[in-house]
Amino acid sequence: MNKSLILISNDDGIDAKGIKILTKLMQQLGDVVVVAPDVPRSAQSNALTVTQPIRFRKIEEEEGMIRYSCTGTPTDCVKIALNEILNRKPDLLVSGINHGSNSAINVIYSGTMGAVFEGCENGIPSIGFSLASHFPDPDFGYFEPYVLKIAQTVLEKALPESVCLNVNAPCGEIRGVRVSRQCKGYWTKEFAGRTDPAGRAYYWLTGYFENMEPDAEDTDEWAISHGFISIVPDKIDLTAYEAMETIRSWDL
Amino acid sequence: MNKSLILISNDDGIDAKGIKILTKLMQQLGDVVVVAPDVPRSAQSNALTVTQPIRFRKIEEEEGMIRYSCTGTPTDCVKIALNEILNRKPDLLVSGINHGSNSAINVIYSGTMGAVFEGCENGIPSIGFSLASHFPDPDFGYFEPYVLKIAQTVLEKALPESVCLNVNAPCGEIRGVRVSRQCKGYWTKEFAGRTDPAGRAYYWLTGYFENMEPDAEDTDEWAISHGFISIVPDKIDLTAYEAMETIRSWDL
Repeated sequence: MNKSLILISNDDGIDAKGIKILTKLMQQLGDVVVVAPDVPRSAQSNALTVTQPIRFRKIEEEEGMIRYSCTGTPTDCVKIALNEILNRKPDLLVSGINHGSNSAINVIYSGTMGAVFEGCENGIPSIGFSLASHFPDPDFGYFEPYVLKIAQTVLEKALPESVCLNVNAPCGEIRGVRVSRQCKGYWTKEFAGRTDPAGRAYYWLTGYFENMEPDAEDTDEWAISHGFISIVPDKIDLTAYEAMETIRSWDL
Repeated sequence: MNKSLILISNDDGIDAKGIKILTKLMQQLGDVVVVAPDVPRSAQSNALTVTQPIRFRKIEEEEGMIRYSCTGTPTDCVKIALNEILNRKPDLLVSGINHGSNSAINVIYSGTMGAVFEGCENGIPSIGFSLASHFPDPDFGYFEPYVLKIAQTVLEKALPESVCLNVNAPCGEIRGVRVSRQCKGYWTKEFAGRTDPAGRAYYWLTGYFENMEPDAEDTDEWAISHGFISIVPDKIDLTAYEAMETIRSWDL
């Protein structure tokens, strides 16, 4: 039987600690090919590079593991891997381990999840792993056995059609795993204004997340803030089916 | 009674024909504030600018209409409008009119829809308008009365909570409006390889859309290809609720 082929990407870039750990873990499960951005490309969502061409180059190869760096976004990385690098569809795509949480609405901004959605669109079982820590050198140790088990289980059982996983872990000890839903919330006070030496204003993105349902125990935010790993099954069909009849009734 | 306040953005940039037409149309419905990218930023999805600051400047003001150009992505434009420009929450956000379709899976890559999702996250009734034409100077004329009627109806009736609209029009005459769902499909043969004078390869994103369900009459692709405007109600909660029990049964 062929060994499993596992495609790995992220948005923190090819040199991030998280993707190196993820690569080591996945080598226990199959042959791995890493295609990741050459520099950090956080919060790139599902962005594509369309106004300039992209390039990629092999930077390391050893038995069962090849690493490529790519000038594109995380989504570009997956596209280039599927179209130009791999000679067959991978059995699994994993993205991360992201330095920072991708829970709640952050899932739509996340480059880590951008790579995952691209895998999902192409029919590949795909998982994003994120650690809710912004320390420069976070401890992934508690999370690692869970990453391995979740990836192994998805390899064995696959995933429902057009469904991928958004896995977020708390920082520190882990009490267990909760299958959750995306918490409702939004960002506020999102810019820090500065003035340049010429007197012109400029703005850095920052902000605070407002959790609209802090007491709901079935959300990803609740799980993470209570010491659990959150697994949210996500889908790439954004249709709000339950709203269709309402809009139809408007007789446009 | 106060006039409605309408926020307008897009991803083709402040100088695109589509946003100028949309602005003229919306001036019939209320006071409009345009905050759009200074240059074309197509396929930016929900990307955020995090590694550099952003700037904006007023480029035009007349009775009931102000236009700002912004160095950020479409999502940044909406964030800067809500946080730094507007003194109250707008009654409506419209994005477009995009030069090119945002149907099917393209909704996840679209910067036009990135602006719409950002409005939706902030509780604003939000609509993306796109024309399925890539001509440099497309004729928006057939679409215009529909854009006006859809926007007016949403202003009057609002939208279900956390739901926004992805409206795509065919090129040319229009047979009517169909409330649709997102068609299943994916992109293939996505890169055109080139070689630079130094002999190094580079890749331009291109490709063909593979419709996985060409005969399904309830999809956005079917509507557009049969001369109808497609309205897909979209949501920003990506949770695949129907998959939660399956994942739970894995006992991770």
